[in-house]
Amino acid sequence: MDIAAELLAGSRLALSRAITAVENEYDEATAIMQQLYPHTGQAYVIGVTGPPGAGKSTLTDKLVKVYRRQGKTVGIIAVDPTSPFSGGAILGDRIRMNELTLDEGVFIRSMGTRGSLGGLSRKTADVVKIMDAAGKDVIFVETVGVGQSEVDIVKAADTTVVVLVPGLGDDIQAIKAGILEIGDVFAINKADREGAERLKAELNMMLDLDQAKSAWRPSIRQTVANAGQGIEELVATIDEHAAFLGTSGELVRRRTARARNELIALIEEQISHRILKDIAASGQLDALAAALAERREDPYAIVKRLLAAYLR
Amino acid sequence: MDIAAELLAGSRLALSRAITAVENEYDEATAIMQQLYPHTGQAYVIGVTGPPGAGKSTLTDKLVKVYRRQGKTVGIIAVDPTSPFSGGAILGDRIRMNELTLDEGVFIRSMGTRGSLGGLSRKTADVVKIMDAAGKDVIFVETVGVGQSEVDIVKAADTTVVVLVPGLGDDIQAIKAGILEIGDVFAINKADREGAERLKAELNMMLDLDQAKSAWRPSIRQTVANAGQGIEELVATIDEHAAFLGTSGELVRRRTARARNELIALIEEQISHRILKDIAASGQLDALAAALAERREDPYAIVKRLLAAYLR
Repeated sequence: MDIAAELLAGSRLALSRAITAVENEYDEATAIMQQLYPHTGQAYVIGVTGPPGAGKSTLTDKLVKVYRRQGKTVGIIAVDPTSPFSGGAILGDRIRMNELTLDEGVFIRSMGTRGSLGGLSRKTADVVKIMDAAGKDVIFVETVGVGQSEVDIVKAADTTVVVLVPGLGDDIQAIKAGILEIGDVFAINKADREGAERLKAELNMMLDLDQAKSAWRPSIRQTVANAGQGIEELVATIDEHAAFLGTSGELVRRRTARARNELIALIEEQISHRILKDIAASGQLDALAAALAERREDPYAIVKRLLAAYLR
Repeated sequence: MDIAAELLAGSRLALSRAITAVENEYDEATAIMQQLYPHTGQAYVIGVTGPPGAGKSTLTDKLVKVYRRQGKTVGIIAVDPTSPFSGGAILGDRIRMNELTLDEGVFIRSMGTRGSLGGLSRKTADVVKIMDAAGKDVIFVETVGVGQSEVDIVKAADTTVVVLVPGLGDDIQAIKAGILEIGDVFAINKADREGAERLKAELNMMLDLDQAKSAWRPSIRQTVANAGQGIEELVATIDEHAAFLGTSGELVRRRTARARNELIALIEEQISHRILKDIAASGQLDALAAALAERREDPYAIVKRLLAAYLR
């Protein structure tokens, strides 16, 4: 069975299997990605991030419905980097309750770290490409929190929506600072709560102070996702940003930079994988680790020897 | 000037400079680390992690004072992976107000990502080694939050203290699940607040359910850090865990596993660095990125070519 060919022919099952292959690092994953790659680059990718409790899932669902009404097909990737074992399950609960799962035009997948640390942002980028090749018009990448892992994950997006909420308390400054630079559009959700105007004013001030100004000044929209308020306006703002990226040449620049970073990550992964497999297979790795733990060797001398042995 | 030699002779300035060299990836960093490596492995490393607002800094300060009263010298590394630009500053504020900075037996350093994503956990591990070589008896690695980055960072620790606090709300389940497996000792701080007993009961239940049981059953202590309550008991529990690691052979096992992982990370970094430098210098990288963005090539074919060209 050729998963990539079936996926390109429209099979939902093949789409699901391709994602599983990437997620679990099956041997066929590389071949699948290689076949799909020429068919990618068509979808528009929207990142949704923000602190826990900001209502990101509800907001994403409402945004998805707007795009569905426009006749667009949608992929949703819900990523939870916080928990190696229960991440999938937590997001799974959300998904089981989600009416979107009944819509054939929507494909939802949740991803966690599944015990293998690191690599989640690269896997997410691959899953974006798989959904892209499968013909989804718009792909949402939604994270559960804010942190460095989330920042890396939303790098796969063309437009990043940062969802904030009034009344988060003391840590808001730290949160805001870290995600200011990745937000193209800010949604102040639960805007019927006290403090929404103050948060907007603070955010505007921080955006004005931001040193790394680009031609796009991030927009702020207020929403009440569970009441459906402000959703159309938020979509309009996302579309504005998409139009800006297109006309300014920024989309090509961003996607080229992304391709560059993904290539670097792949080079690092594949080369290290090849060399480490060889070293581990020969039993050298354990012997070297023991020598290091006992301070009989230092890691820099070891790596120098290995470089000389493996590189041309 | 030989930074490593001066550091080993007791210079605080050299200690500070060695850390800066590692943090900013100066060329001399590798030579310094190589000279210091044989002098490491003496310090006991304690990781302190937990959600924002749990009182980790206050708790760390109180723990440090106990060790100081025992005549031990202490290093503190405060790591903030959440913010590329303001992390250092936020921790800096904390540190400027800290009376520990007046104690010659304590060395405090804060670290952020400083714009370079990734690598923070490896740099933290190097800073631990630098303080270790400088003769600190106990080294604290304190993070600002909980997330995958923090989990990676506290891997440098022999004993990991997870600080929790009553009344964190809905997200506690997610937080707990992710850090359950890394906690050797749990501190329920602000234990004079409502809900401390319930949190302890919940935590005990989760620990009992934990599948990956080891010979050490994590202990739970209640503390009120800013009132100095429960601190001596917490230190006693950390010491108990340290004794367990020693007598069970687990310390050697953990440190060997850590040496193995650090060696793998160093191999990946150095080999990729060497190859990428070469590719970037030749202008190939930009040309390849452009070809990828336009789908004229696929990344897997490129990497295969590069592997053939660079590896023996």
